[in-house]
Amino acid sequence: MKRYKCIVAYDGSNYIGWQTQPHDITIQESLEKTIKKISGIDANVVGSGRTDARVHARGQCFHFDTSFDLGSDMWKKALNGHLPKDIRILSCEQVSKEFHARFSAKAKHYDYLINIGEYDVFSKDYAYQCYYKLDVDKMIAVSKLFVGTHDFTAFCANTLIMNPNQVRNIFSIDFNIKNDILQISFKGKGFLRYMVRMLVGTMIEVGRGRVTIEEVIKIMEEKDKTSCKFNAKPYGLYLMEVKY
Amino acid sequence: MKRYKCIVAYDGSNYIGWQTQPHDITIQESLEKTIKKISGIDANVVGSGRTDARVHARGQCFHFDTSFDLGSDMWKKALNGHLPKDIRILSCEQVSKEFHARFSAKAKHYDYLINIGEYDVFSKDYAYQCYYKLDVDKMIAVSKLFVGTHDFTAFCANTLIMNPNQVRNIFSIDFNIKNDILQISFKGKGFLRYMVRMLVGTMIEVGRGRVTIEEVIKIMEEKDKTSCKFNAKPYGLYLMEVKY
Repeated sequence: MKRYKCIVAYDGSNYIGWQTQPHDITIQESLEKTIKKISGIDANVVGSGRTDARVHARGQCFHFDTSFDLGSDMWKKALNGHLPKDIRILSCEQVSKEFHARFSAKAKHYDYLINIGEYDVFSKDYAYQCYYKLDVDKMIAVSKLFVGTHDFTAFCANTLIMNPNQVRNIFSIDFNIKNDILQISFKGKGFLRYMVRMLVGTMIEVGRGRVTIEEVIKIMEEKDKTSCKFNAKPYGLYLMEVKY
Repeated sequence: MKRYKCIVAYDGSNYIGWQTQPHDITIQESLEKTIKKISGIDANVVGSGRTDARVHARGQCFHFDTSFDLGSDMWKKALNGHLPKDIRILSCEQVSKEFHARFSAKAKHYDYLINIGEYDVFSKDYAYQCYYKLDVDKMIAVSKLFVGTHDFTAFCANTLIMNPNQVRNIFSIDFNIKNDILQISFKGKGFLRYMVRMLVGTMIEVGRGRVTIEEVIKIMEEKDKTSCKFNAKPYGLYLMEVKY
């Protein structure tokens, strides 16, 4: 058995997310079916983590084990030859059994894109189309609350029973504006479910002037699952890179 | 009856083209249905010209006449409120009956986008994904043959019976490369059916080294409908602007 590590990009628009579900089509399932088609052998695709429905990736990472001896270059070619056109293997390399796409991950980088200009038919599935005027300086100010090690209980969908430890470390949150696209880059050790989207949703509310920074501090401190109701649209979110 | 002139952008991915067809959904039909929904009155939408299936527009122009008194600002808002999210009215103004979206057009600007980098899942429907290395200097050289007033019989799908005059005037063809996207901009008085795509298809063949400039000169001179077999993919093409 050999283990292969792959970097994959996908347009999540037509998928119900990463993880295999009973009824709808997912990225993981598409990859597993394609590996089976090429090799004739079932394989388990292990991602660095899940992405939700309609979320995109420019650098998701997964590994799979197989006894089918093809070599990493040929695996890349064969996968790209058979995968749907919205999923693309960017690299494939053989790795040792020590490597695990999920457990070896050291850091993740997510980008969230917001179109702050006129509504654009071409980015409708690739950036949140923001109809409101945003005060980006206020968004930057509130982002500073989130950087560092904090309890993000209020900003995630994970239950405390399933995930008792909801403390996470965000290394940085950076803002960039180019051609009316506001790009917010999150780098951190790891993120909880919906965490990036809930932080972005909160920042948008602050940028719109509907929530104050003081209220965000209160939400953070209260650690109440019901206090943050803001969850930014999935199609603005991109998993950019997983560091090992 | 008032006449309104609208500028419209659309992502053509899910449409069979501009012009109403018996079976499939078109841009023109979507606009006409939306006007009917708003006003309760049938209206004929007249475009500056057709665009083919999967071709995009950033600045298509159309006019329509209506007795429904809404005002141009409200027409724009109402149309955008009811249109599918891949069609967007950019502007709406009341014009005199002298104005005709097709017959008053003085010039058109089309862009064709080619991804000359790695295959990209995010631009797959918005730029031709070119797997071949292109010699852009050769493409620029061959483009110079097309600029000016020429008989484009060999480079269009129009029949000579329907369109006896296939002489057209191209003002300019400009090349730009940004982030691995080769943008070819065509400006001219008017273009025949498939003309831009056939010219691009020919340039790609020259850029790939499969056709020489001398062969292109021969194709142009022969004016034979069967000699040019190159038609670039529709989803790289954008109608950018119509000048009046």
